[in-house]
Amino acid sequence: MKEKRRFVNIGDLPTGDLNNICDVPGVLVGHYSVNNQDHHTGITAILPHEGNIFRKKVKAGSHVFNGFGKSVGVMQIEEMGTIETPILLTNTLNVGKVSDGLITYMLQDNKEIGVTTGTINPLVLECNDGRLNKIQERILGEKAVFSAIATAKNDFIQGSVGAGSGMICHGLKGGIGSSSRVITFDNKKYHLGVLVNTNFGASNSKSLIFKGRNIGEDIYSRNKNKNEDDKGSIIVVIATDIPLETRQLNRISKRAALGIARTGSFVGNGSGDIFVAFSTSNQTNHFTDTCIEKYEMLRDDYLEKVFKAVVFATEEAILNSMLYSSKTVGYLTTVHSITEYQDLYQDLLIDEEL
Amino acid sequence: MKEKRRFVNIGDLPTGDLNNICDVPGVLVGHYSVNNQDHHTGITAILPHEGNIFRKKVKAGSHVFNGFGKSVGVMQIEEMGTIETPILLTNTLNVGKVSDGLITYMLQDNKEIGVTTGTINPLVLECNDGRLNKIQERILGEKAVFSAIATAKNDFIQGSVGAGSGMICHGLKGGIGSSSRVITFDNKKYHLGVLVNTNFGASNSKSLIFKGRNIGEDIYSRNKNKNEDDKGSIIVVIATDIPLETRQLNRISKRAALGIARTGSFVGNGSGDIFVAFSTSNQTNHFTDTCIEKYEMLRDDYLEKVFKAVVFATEEAILNSMLYSSKTVGYLTTVHSITEYQDLYQDLLIDEEL
Amino acid sequence: MKEKRRFVNIGDLPTGDLNNICDVPGVLVGHYSVNNQDHHTGITAILPHEGNIFRKKVKAGSHVFNGFGKSVGVMQIEEMGTIETPILLTNTLNVGKVSDGLITYMLQDNKEIGVTTGTINPLVLECNDGRLNKIQERILGEKAVFSAIATAKNDFIQGSVGAGSGMICHGLKGGIGSSSRVITFDNKKYHLGVLVNTNFGASNSKSLIFKGRNIGEDIYSRNKNKNEDDKGSIIVVIATDIPLETRQLNRISKRAALGIARTGSFVGNGSGDIFVAFSTSNQTNHFTDTCIEKYEMLRDDYLEKVFKAVVFATEEAILNSMLYSSKTVGYLTTVHSITEYQDLYQDLLIDEEL
Amino acid sequence: MKEKRRFVNIGDLPTGDLNNICDVPGVLVGHYSVNNQDHHTGITAILPHEGNIFRKKVKAGSHVFNGFGKSVGVMQIEEMGTIETPILLTNTLNVGKVSDGLITYMLQDNKEIGVTTGTINPLVLECNDGRLNKIQERILGEKAVFSAIATAKNDFIQGSVGAGSGMICHGLKGGIGSSSRVITFDNKKYHLGVLVNTNFGASNSKSLIFKGRNIGEDIYSRNKNKNEDDKGSIIVVIATDIPLETRQLNRISKRAALGIARTGSFVGNGSGDIFVAFSTSNQTNHFTDTCIEKYEMLRDDYLEKVFKAVVFATEEAILNSMLYSSKTVGYLTTVHSITEYQDLYQDLLIDEEL
Repeated sequence: MKEKRRFVNIGDLPTGDLNNICDVPGVLVGHYSVNNQDHHTGITAILPHEGNIFRKKVKAGSHVFNGFGKSVGVMQIEEMGTIETPILLTNTLNVGKVSDGLITYMLQDNKEIGVTTGTINPLVLECNDGRLNKIQERILGEKAVFSAIATAKNDFIQGSVGAGSGMICHGLKGGIGSSSRVITFDNKKYHLGVLVNTNFGASNSKSLIFKGRNIGEDIYSRNKNKNEDDKGSIIVVIATDIPLETRQLNRISKRAALGIARTGSFVGNGSGDIFVAFSTSNQTNHFTDTCIEKYEMLRDDYLEKVFKAVVFATEEAILNSMLYSSKTVGYLTTVHSITEYQDLYQDLLIDEEL
Repeated sequence: MKEKRRFVNIGDLPTGDLNNICDVPGVLVGHYSVNNQDHHTGITAILPHEGNIFRKKVKAGSHVFNGFGKSVGVMQIEEMGTIETPILLTNTLNVGKVSDGLITYMLQDNKEIGVTTGTINPLVLECNDGRLNKIQERILGEKAVFSAIATAKNDFIQGSVGAGSGMICHGLKGGIGSSSRVITFDNKKYHLGVLVNTNFGASNSKSLIFKGRNIGEDIYSRNKNKNEDDKGSIIVVIATDIPLETRQLNRISKRAALGIARTGSFVGNGSGDIFVAFSTSNQTNHFTDTCIEKYEMLRDDYLEKVFKAVVFATEEAILNSMLYSSKTVGYLTTVHSITEYQDLYQDLLIDEEL
Repeated sequence: MKEKRRFVNIGDLPTGDLNNICDVPGVLVGHYSVNNQDHHTGITAILPHEGNIFRKKVKAGSHVFNGFGKSVGVMQIEEMGTIETPILLTNTLNVGKVSDGLITYMLQDNKEIGVTTGTINPLVLECNDGRLNKIQERILGEKAVFSAIATAKNDFIQGSVGAGSGMICHGLKGGIGSSSRVITFDNKKYHLGVLVNTNFGASNSKSLIFKGRNIGEDIYSRNKNKNEDDKGSIIVVIATDIPLETRQLNRISKRAALGIARTGSFVGNGSGDIFVAFSTSNQTNHFTDTCIEKYEMLRDDYLEKVFKAVVFATEEAILNSMLYSSKTVGYLTTVHSITEYQDLYQDLLIDEEL
Repeated sequence: MKEKRRFVNIGDLPTGDLNNICDVPGVLVGHYSVNNQDHHTGITAILPHEGNIFRKKVKAGSHVFNGFGKSVGVMQIEEMGTIETPILLTNTLNVGKVSDGLITYMLQDNKEIGVTTGTINPLVLECNDGRLNKIQERILGEKAVFSAIATAKNDFIQGSVGAGSGMICHGLKGGIGSSSRVITFDNKKYHLGVLVNTNFGASNSKSLIFKGRNIGEDIYSRNKNKNEDDKGSIIVVIATDIPLETRQLNRISKRAALGIARTGSFVGNGSGDIFVAFSTSNQTNHFTDTCIEKYEMLRDDYLEKVFKAVVFATEEAILNSMLYSSKTVGYLTTVHSITEYQDLYQDLLIDEEL
């Protein structure tokens, strides 16, 4: 007899086998988590492929929907259209140490960086976990970076783990969530996966929309947290094996905002809403003798489905980040889990045979 | 006994007296409509104030969420942060003639333009009404421009009127919609109004969300139009009397995308999603001897409520554009009204005493 | 005995055979000029290729260095990365009529536009010739558009011609200028051509730099025009057969600013400095059944030479626009030619055998 | 008898008393330098004012001319329009450690950061000194940060010092340079100062232009370094006491590119050309009870002079960075000083009484 699991399914596009970002062939994810009285924090690492990313860069795009944020590495993506390191997610004040650790990691296998070739652009994206983590202490360094990358594999745990350990979304426990979609072009199956770190929304959950239903009002009436601001941030990483140029990757990044909106966000003033997208097709060698290279590219007319996939997978990844997270007692506050209010949404879930 | 009207109300912020963009003091709206066998098209004019707009410019910002569009005048808003003409909405292929007509209009009262002072930046925003209008004929010219501006007053009709005459939204009849919100700062009431011209959404209405409820699937099952692309565009004009600088007006413009998303849009490939915002505070004289001028500005910390107002008013304006529109038999197709499916949403409406 | 011509040569890259934008295979240029007591104005048309540009679009990028300008069509280049009409240059207040005329032209051979397929994005770039042209009269319409396009061929006259008829640059007569460079990659010769319409610079010529020499001070001391503002605008169109993606075409566009700076511009407040670049490689069919297409692309490492080519060709094209222009008596003023001051720069010219 | 000094003077606007960025009242600059066999590197700190910058933010803008760069903090300037930390300049791979050190510094006097108020946006701008510094070792940390800030005063040394210790400009020794201009509006004197860290230009100096004269060709013929690429980067920081809003500060930032161009740069592919501008007028309190604040703002019509000031001061600051730098024997190479070629430019210098 097969095991069953209840899950939320958004939209009408088929999900990938794992329904997470690792459905995109080659993409790996690893976590490093710290959970103790003073700290709920960590690092989540997304590897675009298993090889040497500096020597084999992936095409990338980005969109900054709201730039109250301290993420680093996005500027160079905009100019050069490539990612050349693992993508690390972490907490706001730890970006300096984590990016420094990432440089150390990259130098290991690329001893020519900064000597006989150019420097390296570390990509580190952050949200503020300061309610559950003594963020001023910046406890994540080189060791945490190496550990997150070393544990990366082609499946992973979601919820309050890695960079998601201390996140709060719509006043409830958020963190790492993921989802994927499968799209067919010219009779060939392509994959698009989204991974989010959710830390946004009114801290009182009043505006939370769950698969079209505003359950936030009800949670608000039961909950004691009455803060009204739309605080915090969200990082959205989109991976795909569809061949896209930078301009197109920028365009699909932008659609993440629509998925976020569907869960009830207003993207507050103090929010870092940073979206990064990469394609594993058309990888670029750092060292080569060729001047002119051959590429493939999806025609823009066919982007409609890709846009829908981004919106649905982002919405679903956000809900997953909450569904997989448990109540957390932290440094400054206690954050409840959405699962404590499952009566408000369980009829919207679907049974899945595993 | 008071008359009653049923209306949709989005979010928890109070609406203005008219619940349209004219709640912002000074803002006027006028229409010029053409409705015959071959044409359903027109012009809608939004005047930031009653005076000479070239000589008394309003501060403005903008955001291009998807730039498949032929709107003109946005580039200069980004650079100079001002609007200096009435804002005209019309159809895609008519932008040339309408902007030329707008120049003629402006020259009337500003004979120095292009002679002893600089030129003028006509602001004309468009959507494609080519399903209901023989758009190639470009029937709107100077006369239509003058008429739309001349009829501008501090209240107006919504739906299939003016530039909205030939619009299609979520496969149903769209057009001009509006809504407003009132926000209090330092014990003073401020107003924010949104006017949209809606021409977006899957032409089959499948993804339409009405106040959180996906009624699109049901309409789709009853309707015969099975086209799946997210075609068309949306123009969003935001007016406010809150004092804001250009950077802030850009920021609030961007939030229009969140309101659009809440009605089920994926912002398709061929969409011109153009958002323009202006503040009637801090108007700028074209002619003056002063080098340094005094301004007021809302602190960014207080933008949260403004963002919410934009999201709610945009969502409501979109729904209003559909609720006020009737079935239209046009040149290439017949477009049904959402009101033919009111059983799907009427419980979500609220009675209002007029 | 061969004829000789003196010319200015900027930088150390070889020029193309014609030393103008038509050195890029397929590119054609045509003019329509009006010169009479009241008007010195016109249209210059640049055709990326001889075929149907709507059905065979070219990849394009752009950069708005200063957006005080009324050019239309740039927004869609940024989003879609293509040009689908001839590029028309004209005067500021005539943009509406000229873009409308361009739509008429495009509809001739593409009757499906706005009916069975999408609309069309007319690309019309402008400068203000209001000192030499009664610009309020907007005398250029459909006939002028058709004529400029019809006369397009693979060589053309520079100076006070077409859209350049009424332009003023550094207080002297400006207009249309062009230059080209040849670059070799993988043993294959590629071409890059620049066409400018020059209308910028302090109206007193004080800051004009001619091939590194500030001759502006001297001209200023001899000239009576003492106006000090940096007025006007410049349009730069860059064509190349090097295969480049949109992001790269945006990057090379940006370098035009460096060429402009080398002639002494500060890019004034009221300047429309608009740069558009296109590649004739990797053309895109409007109608096709393929989802995923094959492209070629130059590696970014090799862009250095392309950047240099843009800077040198832009600088040279600007100087050419002045060298080819004669003294012009116009509506509001008389504008002198740089050739009246040739003692200040003639030693910097080079003899060329024709 | 007064002492004399020879100096280069660009343009026709008066310089400030110090002719450096500290002419803007309140602005302080400090350096921390490391010079030994393996390292020529350091930190340069620019303080917008003497007080607590987090609590009293300055209005700011920015422009990324070429984003091959690892500078951090620019994204939030674009969104919020403020700077809230000292501006630190350093080497590329050290950004992580230096930004972490800057956070430590800021936490000292602002213990509420990340606990009862939001986080902090460290602004750290970098160039690659990897030819003269073992950059992989990242030797700059908290101590260097504290030292650079602690030594900040209202005058400073230029050339190979602080972050400029290991820089190479046009194949010669570059580093920190500065210049200022005084502008009068409404009978009041305002100041604009520029500080650059120069690390750009073809490594062979061939294209170097010194006050309009191409001396690069001559240096090239005497020098043995024949590398041709336009490597490296430039950081430009612009300070002013003119009241400007963010949009205007973005606009003046952009003009720095024109000053750079006048020295012969093509802004190479691998260049991080990052410009940041701030105004000391209209400072914003982090903590306050007011919703709406009063500001002053220069009218855009008067920006012409500010643009010229930026162009001239940037060009002069770049030349100063070279004139103040001496020959440096470093880790991988020896870099000569422009002063070894003073016969090529000394007639262009002006005597100044000190």
